[in-house]
Amino acid sequence: MSMASAVAAQDWAAQARLAVERALTQWVPEHASAGLGASMRYAVMGGGKRLRPLLCLAARRSVSAKEPLELREVLDQAALRAACAVELIHAYSLVHDDMPCMDNDVLRRGLPTVHVKFGQAQALLCGDALQSLAFELLTPEGAQVEPRVQVELCRLLSVAAGHAGMCGGQAIDLQSVGLNLNREALEEMHQKKTGALLVASVMMGAACAQAQLLPEGAVQHLKTYAAHLGLAFQVVDDILDVVGDTQTLGKTAGKDADMDKPTFVSLLGLPEAKALAQRLHDQAQAALVASQLPHTEVLSALAQEVIDRQH
Amino acid sequence: MSMASAVAAQDWAAQARLAVERALTQWVPEHASAGLGASMRYAVMGGGKRLRPLLCLAARRSVSAKEPLELREVLDQAALRAACAVELIHAYSLVHDDMPCMDNDVLRRGLPTVHVKFGQAQALLCGDALQSLAFELLTPEGAQVEPRVQVELCRLLSVAAGHAGMCGGQAIDLQSVGLNLNREALEEMHQKKTGALLVASVMMGAACAQAQLLPEGAVQHLKTYAAHLGLAFQVVDDILDVVGDTQTLGKTAGKDADMDKPTFVSLLGLPEAKALAQRLHDQAQAALVASQLPHTEVLSALAQEVIDRQH
Repeated sequence: MSMASAVAAQDWAAQARLAVERALTQWVPEHASAGLGASMRYAVMGGGKRLRPLLCLAARRSVSAKEPLELREVLDQAALRAACAVELIHAYSLVHDDMPCMDNDVLRRGLPTVHVKFGQAQALLCGDALQSLAFELLTPEGAQVEPRVQVELCRLLSVAAGHAGMCGGQAIDLQSVGLNLNREALEEMHQKKTGALLVASVMMGAACAQAQLLPEGAVQHLKTYAAHLGLAFQVVDDILDVVGDTQTLGKTAGKDADMDKPTFVSLLGLPEAKALAQRLHDQAQAALVASQLPHTEVLSALAQEVIDRQH
Repeated sequence: MSMASAVAAQDWAAQARLAVERALTQWVPEHASAGLGASMRYAVMGGGKRLRPLLCLAARRSVSAKEPLELREVLDQAALRAACAVELIHAYSLVHDDMPCMDNDVLRRGLPTVHVKFGQAQALLCGDALQSLAFELLTPEGAQVEPRVQVELCRLLSVAAGHAGMCGGQAIDLQSVGLNLNREALEEMHQKKTGALLVASVMMGAACAQAQLLPEGAVQHLKTYAAHLGLAFQVVDDILDVVGDTQTLGKTAGKDADMDKPTFVSLLGLPEAKALAQRLHDQAQAALVASQLPHTEVLSALAQEVIDRQH
């Protein structure tokens, strides 16, 4: 990617991030019953990289080629809802994951976690309500997008969030503390725990399209891109847990090693883990080229960010 | 309702209950990752009255009048998925509600609760995965039902389960311990906490229909029926908490009073609470008559069961 297109991609991503913040502010209810609105907003609006929404919107951008203007707006709006829905699932998973019965973490993005601030019962409900809200966002009354697309979005998100995706991965994670997972088992855990939702982010963006206008196999290549990016993301996470410090990370560093959790670093060593992250990044970029889609520059920049990040 | 039609309604309900048990056995994954399948099945297959699935299927029956046979089968299948989805939401809410940070209950339907049997972390994930699975069931690949209907089902369920429904009601419940709620506030809590999902059960069944074939206002009357039934259900729950014993209930009796929670009995006294349950039942039955739908006998029998139940 040239310097000029890298800057353009960054500008686009900054605009997209703003749109997501605005939409989340609008759609996460401030005044929900009995403090639930306050805890939901706290969980969602506390910053974060918004990687999943950006992946979703960048994937939508990559498949938006030749639509009539009106249809383009409808599909862009559906993608914005999808982007927020996937972020709500991510946010709920962090709230529940931080609870004392799970990782028992008190710090997230430098702030007290939801259960520390609002109590465990409220944190439990907050997470539950965020998951429901994700599906509510995907199925608004009077939407102009084809119902077929809405159904596809709900399917992609529910499968990625559930037993075969994120929750399944977390269950493997729970069970794997203190075990010597081999690389295959470690990859399976991460493919489910974080990979599934990252892949869904991309696939949901890609679902907001007129499929018949796309190059053959393009969506499959986007899926390959997302799978490699998802695994790279986790490898980098494991590296940062070792080389990062608590202040930069905004969460407790060294946590995985302390809890005797298997990681790519514990399995492969630091140099090989770094090389793996780079290889996965390169494969993600190659899949974008193979897709033959004209506007993959933001997806490309996001893959670069994933391996360059410091937190 | 005549004796003969009451018996016919019971037969139909028994068949429907069997269909639900079979479908849940098929759709709740036995072999999901790392024990998650086992906890999910334990949470779902432990019996229970299946009131919500039956309401859904009975509502579908009430709106299934003149469709061609093929369409009828498609809509029946969609309603069976809806019935199971709503039961999964109910089941997840019980799993989370029983956890130590919420009601801290160790007994459910006479068996150890999920967190007692599988641990708190697994219970948390189990509930989360059950909620995802509900939306997965509503959006299967290759479904023959119109996508428009699937979207409507997802919308009804997500709204009823989330901040404006069940989770919102639970948040109010949390906040109301030790407070003197007035009747209006108590009703609002229950309308959200249990009423919303009972209403959604009926509305989801009613959504599996060709709307243009129905008498005018029929769906609105079904909603009125469900709202009254939902509140009657809660009033009876409060009555049973006082007059029932732990063995018959299959859960800890006297729990609400012990926890200083406001109930219809604490607010109105036992005789007036019983009279209220009867009035709500009568209003539910009147709404069925007003709907002018030809096959409401199962809905009618279910309303009767709700106020006659001993557990």
